[in-house]
Amino acid sequence: MKNLISMGLKVEAGRVFVLDQEILPQNEIWLECKTPNDMINFIKSLKIRGAPLIGVGAAIALAQYAEKLKTSKKNSDNMIQMILTAAHQLRDARPTAVNLMAAVDRVILKQPLNALTVGNIVRSAEDLFDEDVALCEAMAVNGANVIEDGDNILTHCNTGGLATAGIGTALGVIARSFKNGKIIHVYVDETRPLLQGARLTTWELQKLKIPFTLICDNMAAMLMKQDKVQKIIVGSDRIASNGDFANKIGTYSVAVNAHHHKIPFYVAAPWTTIDWSCSSGNHIPIEERHAKEVRYPSAPEGCAVYNPAFDVTPHELVTGYILDRGFFKDWNQAKLLNDKS
Amino acid sequence: MKNLISMGLKVEAGRVFVLDQEILPQNEIWLECKTPNDMINFIKSLKIRGAPLIGVGAAIALAQYAEKLKTSKKNSDNMIQMILTAAHQLRDARPTAVNLMAAVDRVILKQPLNALTVGNIVRSAEDLFDEDVALCEAMAVNGANVIEDGDNILTHCNTGGLATAGIGTALGVIARSFKNGKIIHVYVDETRPLLQGARLTTWELQKLKIPFTLICDNMAAMLMKQDKVQKIIVGSDRIASNGDFANKIGTYSVAVNAHHHKIPFYVAAPWTTIDWSCSSGNHIPIEERHAKEVRYPSAPEGCAVYNPAFDVTPHELVTGYILDRGFFKDWNQAKLLNDKS
Repeated sequence: MKNLISMGLKVEAGRVFVLDQEILPQNEIWLECKTPNDMINFIKSLKIRGAPLIGVGAAIALAQYAEKLKTSKKNSDNMIQMILTAAHQLRDARPTAVNLMAAVDRVILKQPLNALTVGNIVRSAEDLFDEDVALCEAMAVNGANVIEDGDNILTHCNTGGLATAGIGTALGVIARSFKNGKIIHVYVDETRPLLQGARLTTWELQKLKIPFTLICDNMAAMLMKQDKVQKIIVGSDRIASNGDFANKIGTYSVAVNAHHHKIPFYVAAPWTTIDWSCSSGNHIPIEERHAKEVRYPSAPEGCAVYNPAFDVTPHELVTGYILDRGFFKDWNQAKLLNDKS
Repeated sequence: MKNLISMGLKVEAGRVFVLDQEILPQNEIWLECKTPNDMINFIKSLKIRGAPLIGVGAAIALAQYAEKLKTSKKNSDNMIQMILTAAHQLRDARPTAVNLMAAVDRVILKQPLNALTVGNIVRSAEDLFDEDVALCEAMAVNGANVIEDGDNILTHCNTGGLATAGIGTALGVIARSFKNGKIIHVYVDETRPLLQGARLTTWELQKLKIPFTLICDNMAAMLMKQDKVQKIIVGSDRIASNGDFANKIGTYSVAVNAHHHKIPFYVAAPWTTIDWSCSSGNHIPIEERHAKEVRYPSAPEGCAVYNPAFDVTPHELVTGYILDRGFFKDWNQAKLLNDKS
């Protein structure tokens, strides 16, 4: 496999490394991923995260696995069986983000068996990585007009270089507008319970020297009421075929508040985030995670907790979709484009 | 001073103790308050908190101070001067909750100088404590019809026995309905940044054996969308004369979401929480607290933070006011009652 480098995932001389996002920003430690099982554990524990990046990460882990099996001189039937098993396990590592499933399907599970050569697998994983970089660039271009000079932009969770192989989805659009000279300021939702905003988005914005202010999620509404937020841009883990979308828990509350305060609310995501087989947000499976995440840092041990990792925002609350294939004010335009292709 | 006991404040043989709410529920430690300055520090650091309770606490601290000054045989002019100074300092300990100011005014600052005898001061502080217990009882009675069998009730912050001298405001209404046999379940907003919901409301509900589920603040909207919340009851730190009210940061977001989902949203507060001199929520001073509260537990050191301790909810979003003097669907009825009295 060729060398690849992004903010949270890299391949160096065939070795795969993941920047441990569970312990950022206090510690910047690269973990080596030696097996598909390592990658599954990294995905489940959110050491690698972000809908696009876990798709790319899974593909890279499978490519590495194929290379290793070849070196160990497994016979071809055995090898394909082992890769298929690993692919299925990786595909199931997290249920909500469709990019993970799309990536594993593309590299392995939707390939004809006779196409599953090491060369093919490695090439599709590399392509997926490179394409993800390009998709981010395209979103940044398509979202450029959304942001105006002087905007205060609110965002939720982390959707930047740590969530993709490129510059990011929502945060990529924001970062590119800053790089292009727009004067902006970002309000960062801390994003409970796992604080991806407080830990990861702040870390990225500091590196990019983009002015920002960290807030608790429950402060966003007050800022909107005070006219301190001009735009809201978030990412997505899965967009249903009617435009409803799942994203990090808390996104729906932001959307309802944006609607109430008449503030434009945009979703930025690659085309691969759309699940055309899913008719509406009601059918997107929502991962529930361990209670300890919500109890941390100080609730009583053992108390009852509800901990959905995502929520669903209906398309009615979305002002526009920033996709790599275009900017769509009306979801039906995106649908039309899909029907044509 | 007579012996007094509540969940978070007690007087025993003239000594005053505060249950340290900063370190609940992991540690249950009573701190002795020996001077008005101790009480100011306890209030500022939220070791004692809750709009009604800090008013009562300030009054008790002043009564204790008067008793001590008398024992130390200060001359009367000196003594009054020292009490007035302490009263002004206590009154300024926190800016948003009007109960603190109302309590200090009533016990000291709005008394004619010749009425400021130790006996009078001690008696008014004791009265204030006992009245607060009675106000909670009255709210519980007036709010009884709001809650129906089978309700899932969402609440924000802590408004129970730890926030008052009695059974509480919003949580008092909820707890009494449970005690009266109604089958209920409570969704507890954790209430970032200081987690009064996760630490204190859970602790109280466990003691009361009331079924509850802890959530992150940003999950409330999703629950509402799923029809899992039938009622919302919150407390208040100050109600303006038009019915707008300040309460713990995050309350406004809950109110907007309640409005969007057509879920009844109630405020429970004693009459003393109303500031008739304040014409609207825009004029309620909002305390901003230290950035470290939002940075905790894991944002980068030194990053920019916005940390308002309260927000304001406009009266349009309130379904009804549960006050000790009655239940008011229409704020104008409460206003009328005030004009008459």
